[in-house]
Amino acid sequence: MSDQTIEQWGLFEIALNGPSDGNPYLDVRLHAEFRCGDFRLEVAGFYDGEGVYRIRLMPDQMGAWQYTTHSSTPELDGHSGQFTCGAAAENVHGPVYVQNTFHFAYADGTPYYPFGTTCYAWTHQGEVLEEQTLHTLTTVGFNKLRMCVFPKHYPFNHNEPVHYPFERDAAGEHDFTHFNPAFFRHLEQRVGQLRELGIEADIILFHPYDRWGYARMDEATDCRYLRYLIARLAAYRNVWWSLANEYDFMLEYKPLARWDQFFQILIDEDPYHHLRSIHQGMPDQMYDHTKPGVTHVCIQHSQVRQVVEWRRIYGKPIVNDELEYEGNIIYPWGSISAEEVVHRFWLVVVNGGYAGHGETYMHPDDILWWSKGGVLHGESWKRIRFLRQMIEDMPSGGLTPAVDSPTSVFPSGVGKYYWSRYAGGCNGDTHLIYLAEYQPTRLTLWLPPDEDYQFDLIDTWAMTIMPAVVKRLETAPSYSYAFSGDLPTYEIELPGKPHLALRIRK
Amino acid sequence: MSDQTIEQWGLFEIALNGPSDGNPYLDVRLHAEFRCGDFRLEVAGFYDGEGVYRIRLMPDQMGAWQYTTHSSTPELDGHSGQFTCGAAAENVHGPVYVQNTFHFAYADGTPYYPFGTTCYAWTHQGEVLEEQTLHTLTTVGFNKLRMCVFPKHYPFNHNEPVHYPFERDAAGEHDFTHFNPAFFRHLEQRVGQLRELGIEADIILFHPYDRWGYARMDEATDCRYLRYLIARLAAYRNVWWSLANEYDFMLEYKPLARWDQFFQILIDEDPYHHLRSIHQGMPDQMYDHTKPGVTHVCIQHSQVRQVVEWRRIYGKPIVNDELEYEGNIIYPWGSISAEEVVHRFWLVVVNGGYAGHGETYMHPDDILWWSKGGVLHGESWKRIRFLRQMIEDMPSGGLTPAVDSPTSVFPSGVGKYYWSRYAGGCNGDTHLIYLAEYQPTRLTLWLPPDEDYQFDLIDTWAMTIMPAVVKRLETAPSYSYAFSGDLPTYEIELPGKPHLALRIRK
Repeated sequence: MSDQTIEQWGLFEIALNGPSDGNPYLDVRLHAEFRCGDFRLEVAGFYDGEGVYRIRLMPDQMGAWQYTTHSSTPELDGHSGQFTCGAAAENVHGPVYVQNTFHFAYADGTPYYPFGTTCYAWTHQGEVLEEQTLHTLTTVGFNKLRMCVFPKHYPFNHNEPVHYPFERDAAGEHDFTHFNPAFFRHLEQRVGQLRELGIEADIILFHPYDRWGYARMDEATDCRYLRYLIARLAAYRNVWWSLANEYDFMLEYKPLARWDQFFQILIDEDPYHHLRSIHQGMPDQMYDHTKPGVTHVCIQHSQVRQVVEWRRIYGKPIVNDELEYEGNIIYPWGSISAEEVVHRFWLVVVNGGYAGHGETYMHPDDILWWSKGGVLHGESWKRIRFLRQMIEDMPSGGLTPAVDSPTSVFPSGVGKYYWSRYAGGCNGDTHLIYLAEYQPTRLTLWLPPDEDYQFDLIDTWAMTIMPAVVKRLETAPSYSYAFSGDLPTYEIELPGKPHLALRIRK
Repeated sequence: MSDQTIEQWGLFEIALNGPSDGNPYLDVRLHAEFRCGDFRLEVAGFYDGEGVYRIRLMPDQMGAWQYTTHSSTPELDGHSGQFTCGAAAENVHGPVYVQNTFHFAYADGTPYYPFGTTCYAWTHQGEVLEEQTLHTLTTVGFNKLRMCVFPKHYPFNHNEPVHYPFERDAAGEHDFTHFNPAFFRHLEQRVGQLRELGIEADIILFHPYDRWGYARMDEATDCRYLRYLIARLAAYRNVWWSLANEYDFMLEYKPLARWDQFFQILIDEDPYHHLRSIHQGMPDQMYDHTKPGVTHVCIQHSQVRQVVEWRRIYGKPIVNDELEYEGNIIYPWGSISAEEVVHRFWLVVVNGGYAGHGETYMHPDDILWWSKGGVLHGESWKRIRFLRQMIEDMPSGGLTPAVDSPTSVFPSGVGKYYWSRYAGGCNGDTHLIYLAEYQPTRLTLWLPPDEDYQFDLIDTWAMTIMPAVVKRLETAPSYSYAFSGDLPTYEIELPGKPHLALRIRK
């Protein structure tokens, strides 16, 4: 084991044999101290059943690492060893963190722009469907997946899970003091497979849609469960902690202080400080995302233009993960058209936020992507992939809403008006303007002088990018009431249909 | 003249010869007292040029009327006469007033639902185009027209008017103390023609888009102009007074007190108390529509769902006359798609408000309907006519937003959520539900028991009305999380596309 080399941001694991009598989940404490040069890290271990204990590390520094285990249980105490952390594998950039206040990047600085989808209960659907979901994910271009640890009880979700997170007796009664390692091994397998696909796992710790009792566990059980998850999963570089789907629907049995406590446990015990968020159900039940435990703002909201305001309020990245789903089910949140989804995505992303996808088309066997995975049936995902490509082709660092930008392509005084209709985002000299439901045949823009600009016309639905027909105006056009003598004025010809965008680059 | 019979809500006119020397507009005061039984009415006269003075009455009571004129000018004083007011002509129902708090009706109680359009400067375009506009209005189904008294200076509006409201000298200098009777006769002719078409004239008294000085007249001139208009036009039963297009863009030279004063003059001097409103430009510059002079709320706003909130705030009918126009010009307010216009109309009207149409398609000769009239080029007007027919087929009295209605087709607790997505309006047992951008394939509704209901499926774009496929559920469907044992539950099949509506009637 001394020769072992682990790639940076890979997973190193210590396995130890120890006691299996009593209740190891309650009785045994185990951690390891890892050292790499002057750098030290304490990492908690966990019991994996059948007398096996494990400690996992995601090494984030290259070089020689040593470790020593510590436990009040003699068999687990005082084990030491070493390994080498080498260069990261190709296309591995580490965990995702906040960068540039409103945006994200991998640990190595590579920009990361979340374009995620949602399969809440996909890990509870059995091998065939789960493999199909993974296969779909290889092709559709999402780089984040919202998924619950616990199974889901809800319309279209009546099946029992394959595995249960706690041991159950013959009568189906849970023993909340005994985890079921098979459940967690399966979860880890799926998280690991997402990691190999370059997909961040936005792991939802608690949700209210439950018939097994997982939503109503007591405080001690909740906290033990959270610590167990951290010990098992934190070493997966693609883990994000999403405290809840709709925390506000659980306040009756999980008061606000409990959620604050969860954030604190994550702050204290996740050695890598993976991203942390909490998601609400009702638009007026927003958690106080200014609290320091919250790394980024996860929002469920259909009024997507508010992203500009949320950026101002929270000063953190905004991810509107439920702007409602493409589909045709009976619930409004799951029955907007593909066109509407794409429209909302553009409004959010051009305004410097991020958005999440979901799909809820009726299915004869109740296999709805939003919860169970499977295959996609809709039309929005392709356009979201196209948008992702557009954003990845922009200068790195993310977009600032044009209305909050010191420069604007519209003259001061009318800029605010225009940006309440269109959506505009800037990054340096690059502008992305989404015309939303507006269909002008011309657009007049003001740009700093002495530069050559390239204007591209984007059809957000047809997914085309074409050079725009542009002329520089020397005098005010007859149809205009605003003309600047100070800045060069460009007139762009447009085809006069909605849902177009313009990209302007030097 | 003693034998003269005037139809109810027609126009009776007294013409008198008087002095033409000095400045009759400033020097001469004239009014008549009209009596019909115990009913008395004082009506101001006006100078019509060339030594002719006129006093106009719209008799709103059937029976024998007498009058006597009063003036400090001896030639105009003490004329008396009589006439008979007979039954109203066919299809004449009198002026429109507020009824049922949020709605309108003609004086005879016939419901009036405003479905108006906008041709700001149509009376300044010359005979050929003005006649074409009138011809268009005979066929397209609008029953209100927003129009300015003054000509318009603005992009696409560079032409001089045919007539000027004040006398001008050879150098084009206005004499604001002398009205130009030809201007007002022409205006009256057009208002009268609209009256014959059954179209209410929503007459805009002031607007900021001006190069002649009409927007910046002093207080005395403003008030004299307003009184002159009242004297000339109030006897046209189809007149509505709209104090301004975008009063907030004129506050620099017409402070708030001036607008309050205009309301007071109308209250005091319009014998028929025609409808009075004032229209703003910026969304945050709403006039205080709770003031008693305001009969109904005229609003310019693209966030059309706010109609529900405005009803609560103002307790008056809401007319969103600028929810943005169908067209393709360079300004966002004039470049939304026909689909978006129709969508916004449904959101407003189903929520118990009213909306206004406008059309701004680029034209080689700058003839844009919104300002100059002519012909319609768009696609929204047909769907608005279809919606008008739907509303006129409802029980009279207008719609109440479902969210404010004591009964709801959705169970309590989730109703608010549904109505923030769909739009619903009720009138007694009749419900109109607009599904907006949502496309469920099924909808489950709760209705009071022991009634037979008729469910119609409406395609707001295709303009079709078809019986919906409905079944009454006896048990909760598997896809539902809400089921009421108390109220009968109906499941409606839907085609799964956006912009549909449902009508439910007993």
